[in-house]
Amino acid sequence: MTDTQTTTRGAVIDLARSQSAKFRPAPLTAVALTDAFWEPRIRINRETTLPFQLAECEATGRINNFRRASGKKDIPFEGIYFNDSDVYKMAEAMAYSLATNPDPKLDAALDAVIQEIADAQQPDGYLNTYFMFERESERYTNTKDMHEIYCAGHLIQAAVAHHRATGKTTLLDIAIRLADNLDAHFGPNGRIGACGHEEAEMALVELYRDTQEPRYLMLAQRMIEARGQKPGLLGGDEYHQDHRPVREQTALVGHAVRHLYLACGVADVVLENGSETYRAALETLWDNLTQKKMYVTGGAGARWEGEAFGDDYELPNERAYTETCAAIASVMWNWRMLNLTGEAKYADVLETALYNGVMSGLSLDGTHYFYQNPLADHGRHRREKWFGCACCPPNIARLLASLPNYFYSTDKAGGVWCHLYAAGAATLPLETGGSLTLNIETNYPWDGKVTIRVGEDSKTSHALHLRIPQWTDNATLLVDGVPDSLANELKPGSYVEVSVRSGTVIELDLPMRIERVESHPHVAGNRGRVALRRGPLVYCIEQIDFPANVHVWDVALPEDAELVTEFVPELLGGVVVLKGRAVATNSGHWNGALYAPYAPVSPKEFRFVPFTAIPYYAWANREAGPMQVWIPTV
Amino acid sequence: MTDTQTTTRGAVIDLARSQSAKFRPAPLTAVALTDAFWEPRIRINRETTLPFQLAECEATGRINNFRRASGKKDIPFEGIYFNDSDVYKMAEAMAYSLATNPDPKLDAALDAVIQEIADAQQPDGYLNTYFMFERESERYTNTKDMHEIYCAGHLIQAAVAHHRATGKTTLLDIAIRLADNLDAHFGPNGRIGACGHEEAEMALVELYRDTQEPRYLMLAQRMIEARGQKPGLLGGDEYHQDHRPVREQTALVGHAVRHLYLACGVADVVLENGSETYRAALETLWDNLTQKKMYVTGGAGARWEGEAFGDDYELPNERAYTETCAAIASVMWNWRMLNLTGEAKYADVLETALYNGVMSGLSLDGTHYFYQNPLADHGRHRREKWFGCACCPPNIARLLASLPNYFYSTDKAGGVWCHLYAAGAATLPLETGGSLTLNIETNYPWDGKVTIRVGEDSKTSHALHLRIPQWTDNATLLVDGVPDSLANELKPGSYVEVSVRSGTVIELDLPMRIERVESHPHVAGNRGRVALRRGPLVYCIEQIDFPANVHVWDVALPEDAELVTEFVPELLGGVVVLKGRAVATNSGHWNGALYAPYAPVSPKEFRFVPFTAIPYYAWANREAGPMQVWIPTV
Repeated sequence: MTDTQTTTRGAVIDLARSQSAKFRPAPLTAVALTDAFWEPRIRINRETTLPFQLAECEATGRINNFRRASGKKDIPFEGIYFNDSDVYKMAEAMAYSLATNPDPKLDAALDAVIQEIADAQQPDGYLNTYFMFERESERYTNTKDMHEIYCAGHLIQAAVAHHRATGKTTLLDIAIRLADNLDAHFGPNGRIGACGHEEAEMALVELYRDTQEPRYLMLAQRMIEARGQKPGLLGGDEYHQDHRPVREQTALVGHAVRHLYLACGVADVVLENGSETYRAALETLWDNLTQKKMYVTGGAGARWEGEAFGDDYELPNERAYTETCAAIASVMWNWRMLNLTGEAKYADVLETALYNGVMSGLSLDGTHYFYQNPLADHGRHRREKWFGCACCPPNIARLLASLPNYFYSTDKAGGVWCHLYAAGAATLPLETGGSLTLNIETNYPWDGKVTIRVGEDSKTSHALHLRIPQWTDNATLLVDGVPDSLANELKPGSYVEVSVRSGTVIELDLPMRIERVESHPHVAGNRGRVALRRGPLVYCIEQIDFPANVHVWDVALPEDAELVTEFVPELLGGVVVLKGRAVATNSGHWNGALYAPYAPVSPKEFRFVPFTAIPYYAWANREAGPMQVWIPTV
Repeated sequence: MTDTQTTTRGAVIDLARSQSAKFRPAPLTAVALTDAFWEPRIRINRETTLPFQLAECEATGRINNFRRASGKKDIPFEGIYFNDSDVYKMAEAMAYSLATNPDPKLDAALDAVIQEIADAQQPDGYLNTYFMFERESERYTNTKDMHEIYCAGHLIQAAVAHHRATGKTTLLDIAIRLADNLDAHFGPNGRIGACGHEEAEMALVELYRDTQEPRYLMLAQRMIEARGQKPGLLGGDEYHQDHRPVREQTALVGHAVRHLYLACGVADVVLENGSETYRAALETLWDNLTQKKMYVTGGAGARWEGEAFGDDYELPNERAYTETCAAIASVMWNWRMLNLTGEAKYADVLETALYNGVMSGLSLDGTHYFYQNPLADHGRHRREKWFGCACCPPNIARLLASLPNYFYSTDKAGGVWCHLYAAGAATLPLETGGSLTLNIETNYPWDGKVTIRVGEDSKTSHALHLRIPQWTDNATLLVDGVPDSLANELKPGSYVEVSVRSGTVIELDLPMRIERVESHPHVAGNRGRVALRRGPLVYCIEQIDFPANVHVWDVALPEDAELVTEFVPELLGGVVVLKGRAVATNSGHWNGALYAPYAPVSPKEFRFVPFTAIPYYAWANREAGPMQVWIPTV
């Protein structure tokens, strides 16, 4: 049995005892979102998506694979060899949901799944439904390709989430036995090894945080150190991030989700042991991501071949791979970096990836998914209910179920840090004791006005740090109706500190300009184009908003075109659109030619059309048609 | 034994009896090139490349695989399962070389290779060194993936070439027995089937042309009809061109070399049977290639994943796959279409692909190869001596060895059609009897002036049709010093007919302007950019020709920049460069940022730099450095 006193109820990552953490994320359970943007998504996730995914895991044999392993069913293994992980990610999502919204029916459903998992575990703690019976002898023989340790990592994360959400140790006990099995094989008494698909590193650190058993932290460190050996244990290639030791890695390469999950695991280790070497490597990798390899949507992974990062500045739009899971991984990594360093730049990237690169992966009705999230399309890329390789759907589900976690952190001085904004309420346990209650009113992300009322539980003053996003300028702050004396410090990309106590009313205004953004000139496909951004949202144009005789790829923005905002409540669940006048250049006059003598279009030939841009996350929710984010300028 | 009377000595494709052919290509042996562009390349190919490739086929076990199959060596199969084809393509190249340049040593070397092939053939005619011994039972069990029929096709092409070059039937006899084996399995008494990698279709038609055995033509037709069955026999997917029947295919999809080889085979069948259905399908596919999917270099195949065609207008430059073999396949297909239809547009595409998309695949010293031919590069893409998957090197070798074949055709009316220009001489057998000798003087491709003197063998007049390339205008023609009365018909993209007899002197001038070419606006990466073309050549800019502090990706061409030509004899084997003044935009001031508020560069900030562009085919022959074809405009 486990001492449940060492864990933080409702935590997603629990940094309560992490020596090098600057912040401690507020528990999931401390935050209630009541806003019009996130609350319905989280509710649909809970009410519709989780039951659907459970049914899908049954229908596709994913749960039957556990019944097969336990001998309850005499059937062949069904699906892909890493399908166990989808069940675990779903279970993790269910656990977060139980933390915020206790539900006996869901609790019982999850218990039933856990029972199937428990029954499938082997006497020595081993657990993977693929490597059973005739494949028993192959266990851990090909950790490069076969995702066994990856699946174990997802089980561990689900188990810790379940423990923190419900206090039950049923899944945690399984995870501990599996982790001990991993430790026996890959710990100090075993061999050097790791998984070709990173994931277990962060899971093992989280298990350490939950159990305080240092072997799990050491095992995570060993798995990180296993990469880049000569000769390589995991292919020795960039695809598996095995081309050089992690501490010497300077660029994001190979499979995007894998490298970003690895970065999460390394950040978790640094949060615990403060390694300057690994911290420096993470900062170098982060610079490479944000300066060379990240889409304006926060998406990552340019190449379809190998689901991989491309070269510096290789960011094709139509063929962007930008797996939903990679954007989620970026959110997870930036969250760890933010809590490690306290630097607002990580919150900026987290917010961009969350609102754009992640949310584009989910349909507005919450039931259809993108695996890839291109930034331009012919109109054929449509969301699907599920995938054979179903990593993304349950990954979105666990992110949404844990979303309240990403809004607040606390620090050792008794301060509170507010990273994201949404209407709702939070009662945040302070590290110096007591709590601070915040009631938030805002129309974010449609409007940057945020009113925060401090609740009655704070008789003494506390430092409240409010994030001033990089995308705003001329932010203003009133405290109890009075301009804040520190207002000259409202620097974009920073946090402003306000001293608050019970009853304090804060009025923060983060003006959301319509920004035209251009790319570094070496991003070939973005030359002569701008992206439109407002607040945290990136915009795009869709064919349905333009006349049928104007191909949306032919729409160009004059430099002086004035754009205005309009909130359209009945459109796409209620969105702010950008409106104005654009030019319809004419690809039709090419008459099928692919190349022609250069003849610049004269402004005299401009044909003006009404222009409407919608938030990128909301595309492909109406009829199919071409789309683009990067709009040509004329 | 075979009746050698039915074949045309020195033919590459022999259309002497092809009912639907408008033209008959002149035999390889009728044409001697003495120019400074092609002659050295063909000579290096003969003197250096072919011996090197033979040695490489020995060193890599490719020939040992035949010795293993015949029981001479008890060794494991070495290399990739389709490695036999590299030996066959090399043998085909050797045969063409023997046709133009008889060489007892090469002849003996080829005879020795043929003996190894003969000894490896099975009693039933089967021949594939991979499917021997323990793999015997797998023969023809997976024609989708295992390239057996593809390898057979290459053997057949080599055999026909060898027969026509030398009159020997040693290799042809092997090919006939193998074709009969294929016919037994996939002919009318066998099952419907074809190869996942097309190639055998055109080979079988060529064998039919050589032997007049109609079973081989019928087998080629059956293999074409095998595609697009429901359910698919070859995966049913676009990758294998099995998604729909060939006659219903409207777009080039899937593996680029495969679809282009398929188009060659279909064109060969149409040349024989005149099928209007297949001819229409070919024309639709050709329009798709040239209007939607062809690089300005004539290269084809946009995607690394699957070595495949992309969507319409999907033509990334840096990540262009543009396999050298795909450009060669385009030359082969356009050659068939030209001789089928007599339409100059096919010659235009053939010439573009040959001078640019194919020749970039070979280093100037003739010994290093590109597999991919990108149109922009960081400076890391360099040619290699050989590849594990070595399809391209022997493919270039057989194209170069057969190159004189592509210059002339004849027609049934006794006319001669001149498609390409290079200094040299040709004695062309006329279809109405007799011959026409042409002596060509020109500095093509550096200069469009072509002087043709008709030799003494033509006492009567003959129609000589001269190609006026699409890229020229204001072409002029003097016949015996007098402006041709039909000069108003010198329409770009057509043939002009001149009546010639012994002693006629023709002075054709095809002015080579420096052209700026732009792309259809939906080619995302080419927006706001131009390519430079002069005559048949596409140009590029390389870092080595610019100051070190000006990144070649930052060089932009002002709309009014004047460009001039200069022949530099000591540069890259002697090339015409394009010179002028360009603008160095500054990516350095981005200071690592990937995105920034849109701020157009003002012309006042322009920094001018000397500008030099070199022919694209000649890039990557000096020190490594960035390159680009599509140059931004300012």
